[in-house]
Amino acid sequence: MREVVVLGVGMHRFGKFPETSLRELAGEAGRGALRDAGVSPRDIQAAYFANALAGLLTGQESIRGQVALREVGVAGVPIVNVENACASGATAFHQAVLAVGSGSCDIALAVGAEKMFVGDTGRTIQALAASADVELTQDMGLQFTAIYAMRIQRRLKSGALTLRHLAAVTVKSHRHGRLNPYAQHQKEVTAEEVLASRPIAGPITLLMCSSISDGAAAAVVCSADVARRREAAAPPIRILASELRSGAFRSGAEEELSTAARTVRAAYEQAGVGPEDISLVECHDATAPGELLYYEDLGFCKPGEAGRLLDEGATAIGGRIPFNPSGGLTSRGHPVGATGLAQIAEAVWQLRGQAGPRQVTSARMALAQNSGGWLEGDSAVGAAHIFAV
Amino acid sequence: MREVVVLGVGMHRFGKFPETSLRELAGEAGRGALRDAGVSPRDIQAAYFANALAGLLTGQESIRGQVALREVGVAGVPIVNVENACASGATAFHQAVLAVGSGSCDIALAVGAEKMFVGDTGRTIQALAASADVELTQDMGLQFTAIYAMRIQRRLKSGALTLRHLAAVTVKSHRHGRLNPYAQHQKEVTAEEVLASRPIAGPITLLMCSSISDGAAAAVVCSADVARRREAAAPPIRILASELRSGAFRSGAEEELSTAARTVRAAYEQAGVGPEDISLVECHDATAPGELLYYEDLGFCKPGEAGRLLDEGATAIGGRIPFNPSGGLTSRGHPVGATGLAQIAEAVWQLRGQAGPRQVTSARMALAQNSGGWLEGDSAVGAAHIFAV
Repeated sequence: MREVVVLGVGMHRFGKFPETSLRELAGEAGRGALRDAGVSPRDIQAAYFANALAGLLTGQESIRGQVALREVGVAGVPIVNVENACASGATAFHQAVLAVGSGSCDIALAVGAEKMFVGDTGRTIQALAASADVELTQDMGLQFTAIYAMRIQRRLKSGALTLRHLAAVTVKSHRHGRLNPYAQHQKEVTAEEVLASRPIAGPITLLMCSSISDGAAAAVVCSADVARRREAAAPPIRILASELRSGAFRSGAEEELSTAARTVRAAYEQAGVGPEDISLVECHDATAPGELLYYEDLGFCKPGEAGRLLDEGATAIGGRIPFNPSGGLTSRGHPVGATGLAQIAEAVWQLRGQAGPRQVTSARMALAQNSGGWLEGDSAVGAAHIFAV
Repeated sequence: MREVVVLGVGMHRFGKFPETSLRELAGEAGRGALRDAGVSPRDIQAAYFANALAGLLTGQESIRGQVALREVGVAGVPIVNVENACASGATAFHQAVLAVGSGSCDIALAVGAEKMFVGDTGRTIQALAASADVELTQDMGLQFTAIYAMRIQRRLKSGALTLRHLAAVTVKSHRHGRLNPYAQHQKEVTAEEVLASRPIAGPITLLMCSSISDGAAAAVVCSADVARRREAAAPPIRILASELRSGAFRSGAEEELSTAARTVRAAYEQAGVGPEDISLVECHDATAPGELLYYEDLGFCKPGEAGRLLDEGATAIGGRIPFNPSGGLTSRGHPVGATGLAQIAEAVWQLRGQAGPRQVTSARMALAQNSGGWLEGDSAVGAAHIFAV
């Protein structure tokens, strides 16, 4: 496959925007990515549109991208609607990379957008449940926060983590989010506030959870050859790895890896790097304590040492390996189909040195890890991308 | 892009199967394609799953493919859910071709499945309307049959077509469908029956319409290099062109081409062939009279001459350029997400000489043309594939 680079990224702020439609959210992010890349709508030769819930929440199914991307001025070219639950955004990006990598086109656009505020939170939560195997889960009343809670409880029982850690990682998330103008929550919280906030699924409290959110993010990718021939304001960002995996997989090995771990290991292998080479991580903390599990799963510390890594300050901005300088899903917000592309936008801004007050110093290589859905006890989808300047 | 071939295809018969779930439909088609290709589930390195309506009709959104493909034994590898209205099936196939073509994998699976009988026809028709721009159409009461009817009426008024032609192309469709064991309708009809059947949207009658249908179809593609190293029961089928386009495009030229015409012209160009090289066509006759429009749009006769081409018998099995030997959407049935892959399965069977009583003699090259959705007066999606032995 030929080399593919990121030419530009764009975002619509995540948050509650009752007056803004899905296509307007997508339009702002898409136009931003084109402007950042220095390309016109006519330059885009293929587009991938990620959205998970519009069919159930707005009734717009099937041709969501063809409808929304008119706001960006993209029409006529191949447009493919992709859906992989909370990993839809990274999936769309992965497909854009394959399209350019195959040589079928030179410049492609990936846009992820989600409109979750539809005036009825119950309906939004019901739609989110469609990211699991509904035939199995619909009668169990099981939803995502409960699944996360069970995984965290196991660590609390074993003594590997304490409630103090759950609060501290949430405080860190909000401290980072306060520095991000695209974040839904831009306000610091204290450990006491975190623990005292409304219980959602013990031990997880409201402030530990990513919020229902509207938003969009986008990226323009192109072949390295074409990028070299262009005059760009910012240097193109190299894509060292673009990996996608699915769950419900049994390797037969004694120690089964999680979907996220398998995906990120494949990405390290594709890039020829290891966790020690990474400058920053955007990980899929649908609840803030979930980030602690990823420290271990993604290879940044040994099993059982996540609490210590956090306590040392290693994963805060200014630390050895900052996690979620953007605020992550917990503070930036989690408009399902947009999240994967927002992680990628953050990686690009960090590697270019454009992240303002949340800039990670000397950022040379970034990992973006996106998860989606639920299948047989693990994520149904894993996506991992490694970027470098 | 490196060369990609079709190694195997499979189908679940189209029709009304109230006892069969989406995953069971997909499972039978997927397993059939693997068996036909002579590969095991473990050989599949990436999968694309096409479905348009399950979110709205069954509540299973987001991870439809990850859920359904467990029936085929495919897990762990990249699985991407794609959605492009009635062109979802050909879109999934196109993505599988890009994945193999890019070199990111050697063998990929595309499955299209749809479950439209959910015990409430009104709900199915409502879900189908989500394939248009719902913000624009929901208050107009406009649906697909009405759109087709308006296009046909224009031809009737100009004298280019007569009611006799509309009946005759429907009779031909059902005559072909009777020979196809995978078709929903396997019964011949007379011109009198067609014209006397219930009016749907004048001049279109019930027997002219594709039916609500359950069904699935699948294909295994692989790199030509890998295919050469395999012992296969049937020879691999070459993919000369794989093109996808979107509507809402204005070229600025005086004579605007339809989405279908633009897509098929691009496919001819990619393959380096013209209509005169094609042995048979599977076209998107969501209503039987629509096939007459494609004779002209796809370059098989001059504008205004579709009626004559039909009258000559050129487009029937045994004629110069058979259209829809499978029975097409009208007689085979139209389970939305499965249709594009069913067209491709038919093309493969025909080119291998495995089409039984509906075999087109000396079939050397086949065109499969799939359309989807509705946007600003034309199809929102066009897909075209050209295959050769």
